[in-house]
Amino acid sequence: MVKYEAQLDAIFTALAHPARRTMLARLGKGEASVGELARPLDMSLPAVTKHLKVLERAKLISRSRNAQWRPCRLEEAALNAASGWIEAQRTVWESRLDRLEGYLHGMEKSERKKR
Amino acid sequence: MVKYEAQLDAIFTALAHPARRTMLARLGKGEASVGELARPLDMSLPAVTKHLKVLERAKLISRSRNAQWRPCRLEEAALNAASGWIEAQRTVWESRLDRLEGYLHGMEKSERKKR
Repeated sequence: MVKYEAQLDAIFTALAHPARRTMLARLGKGEASVGELARPLDMSLPAVTKHLKVLERAKLISRSRNAQWRPCRLEEAALNAASGWIEAQRTVWESRLDRLEGYLHGMEKSERKKR
Repeated sequence: MVKYEAQLDAIFTALAHPARRTMLARLGKGEASVGELARPLDMSLPAVTKHLKVLERAKLISRSRNAQWRPCRLEEAALNAASGWIEAQRTVWESRLDRLEGYLHGMEKSERKKR
């Protein structure tokens, strides 16, 4: 549980920067080199590398050890963990709204009977 | 666009702490006072207030101005913005995987024809 929480901390922290979101959006289209990821971003290569490390620590991306250009690739599992947490909250609040709606509907019915 | 990015920064930052996620999970069940939100958390009231401010800045929660106990409530729109961003990425990577599958399927067919 603690490990899962720490993982979510790392994932949401990584998602909290526009440059890192831009990189992830690019990697959604397919593997890319560091140079390719840096191109649309107005920042130095060391800054890009720093952001990539944050994404790697959160397991949102991985880097190939084999190819010489070491392409980065998106790891969907981490994004799924993040959306999974939000979806779990949605299930709770939607069932609450359903109950509330049911309650109001019941009240309306009994009001009509009284008339 | 910049405003939307800044909003996502604030939302994902707010989600990147287990105490704040615990608070949001509690608010999914319905409004709660600061005291109620603090109860399951092992932290001081000032620390709880600080976390609430991060959630408020991200518009993940709002606080009633009327009632004396000023209950906190979940604002689903901000969570929807966060999951919306992730879903947009999913659409991209899933269409890429579909194309890849189509390509492999086509290759398999032409291999069979050759035999």
